[in-house]
Amino acid sequence: MAVELFNNGTHACLAFYDLVDEEADHAVQCNQFLIVDGQHGALIDPGGNMTYSGLLMAMQRFFPSRDLDYIFATHADPDIIASLNKWMVTTHCKVMISRLWTRFVPHFTTGKDYTHRLIGIPDEGMNIPLGHSKIKAVPAHFMHSEGNFQFYDPVSKILFSGDMGASLVDHDQAAQPVRDFDDHLLTMIGFHRRYMISNKICRFWVNMVRQLDVEMIVPQHGCRFEGKAMVNRFLDWIETLQCGIDLMTQDNYRAP
Amino acid sequence: MAVELFNNGTHACLAFYDLVDEEADHAVQCNQFLIVDGQHGALIDPGGNMTYSGLLMAMQRFFPSRDLDYIFATHADPDIIASLNKWMVTTHCKVMISRLWTRFVPHFTTGKDYTHRLIGIPDEGMNIPLGHSKIKAVPAHFMHSEGNFQFYDPVSKILFSGDMGASLVDHDQAAQPVRDFDDHLLTMIGFHRRYMISNKICRFWVNMVRQLDVEMIVPQHGCRFEGKAMVNRFLDWIETLQCGIDLMTQDNYRAP
Repeated sequence: MAVELFNNGTHACLAFYDLVDEEADHAVQCNQFLIVDGQHGALIDPGGNMTYSGLLMAMQRFFPSRDLDYIFATHADPDIIASLNKWMVTTHCKVMISRLWTRFVPHFTTGKDYTHRLIGIPDEGMNIPLGHSKIKAVPAHFMHSEGNFQFYDPVSKILFSGDMGASLVDHDQAAQPVRDFDDHLLTMIGFHRRYMISNKICRFWVNMVRQLDVEMIVPQHGCRFEGKAMVNRFLDWIETLQCGIDLMTQDNYRAP
Repeated sequence: MAVELFNNGTHACLAFYDLVDEEADHAVQCNQFLIVDGQHGALIDPGGNMTYSGLLMAMQRFFPSRDLDYIFATHADPDIIASLNKWMVTTHCKVMISRLWTRFVPHFTTGKDYTHRLIGIPDEGMNIPLGHSKIKAVPAHFMHSEGNFQFYDPVSKILFSGDMGASLVDHDQAAQPVRDFDDHLLTMIGFHRRYMISNKICRFWVNMVRQLDVEMIVPQHGCRFEGKAMVNRFLDWIETLQCGIDLMTQDNYRAP
C-alpha cells in the first residue's frame, strides 16, 4: 500500500515500501517513489525486474503510467533501475541519471536504441521542471556510487536521498518513520560503514544539506527521517562517521 | 571474433572484444572472457542484455554453454552482469560475486528464486576450483565498486582486472594489446580520475599485484597490457594517480 508523504491537492509524493518481500524474494528491501504535480509525474528509483509489475499497478491509483514524464535514477545499481527496459517499452518517459552512467545503462536494454531518452545529469546537478514545480538533482557523488544524485523537492521539502540514510529492516517497518534514532542506528551502521566511501565526502554532503530547507529525508531502503529534529540527528551522526576507504588498510588487499 | 589470450592444450583463456558495437549500440564498449580448464568453464563479466546472444553463440566453439560451471562477476554494474536472468534460465552455472551484492543482484531476475546459485565472495577473496586449476578472486574493493573482485589465473598468469586499466577505445582497437603506453594514457586518464575512488586504494592494490606473477593485465573495457614491462608501466602510473575523492572539494557539493 502506498504511503502519502505529502499532498497539497496539486502536488503529491507517494512512497511504495512493500513491493519487495525481502524474505520471500531473498533480495534487499527497497522503496520506490512517485512525485505528481498536476498532470505530470516522475518515478524515483523504480527498482529492478521484481518490482516492475507491482509498481506499474500500484502507481495507477495516483498517476497513469502511460503519461509518465520522467524516471529519476540516483545511480545505476540493479535495485535502482534494472527494470529500465520494461519502462522504456511501456511508457514515453525520459530517464535522468548521472552523465557517468548514460553509456552504461543501455546494457540493461535489448533490441532497441533508447539513448535519446537517457538524459545525463552533469556533475554539478540541475533543476528539472515537473509541472509547475522544479525538482533539484543534488550532487551526492561517492555516496555510494561515483556518479550519484539525490532529488530534492522544494514543494514538499523532501530530500529523496538514495542510499544515504538507508536501513536494513523488513518492509512493514520500512513504511514507518524512525521513532528512536539510537535504536535505529543498529539497522544503518553496518551498511554506511562499508558502502559509503569516506567521511570527507559525508561532511561535504552534510554542509550542503544544512543549506537546504529539509523536512524529511527519505532513503531508498528502510525508514524515513521526519521533521527537522530527526533530520538533524541523522546529519550529526553521518558527519562524524568513519567509513569506506577510511577503514581500509593494506591488510584488506592481499591475494588469498 | 574471439582472441585466444592463452592456450596450453588443456587450459585456455578467450576474450570477446566485438560483441558491443559502441557506435551502433550507443553503449560503452566492453569485453567478455571465458576460461576453460578441461571439461570445466567459467565466464568473467558476461555483460548486459545486448551481449547475451552474441556471447552465447560465440562461446560454443570453445565450450558448451549448457556445461558452464561459473560466472565470475567483478561487481554488479549493468555492463558486467545485467544479463544475469538469461544465464540463470539457460545454464546451471553458479555466480560468484562480492557478498556485498548477493542480495542486490536478484533485482536483475524475475519470477524465480535463483539465490541458491548466487555465491558471495568474502571481502578477503578466495580460491575457486575450476577443473584442475584454481582461480583467485583477488580483493579490488573501491576500484571502482565498494565490493569488487578481480580474477587471477595462476596457469596463464593473467589478471582479469575489471575496470582497473580500462580504456575507452573502439572494439577493433580494444582487441589489440597496448603498444605505446604514453599514447594509450589519453584513453585511460579521464575514466580512472573520475571512476576510481582514491590514490590510497590504488597504492594498496599495486602493492598486492606486485606480489603476484602477472604476465598480462586484461581489463573489461579496451586494451590489455601484455608482458611484465607493460604491466609495470601501468602499475607505476596508477600508483601515483590522484583520483575520485582526492579531487573532490566542497565546490562539488552545492545544490543547483
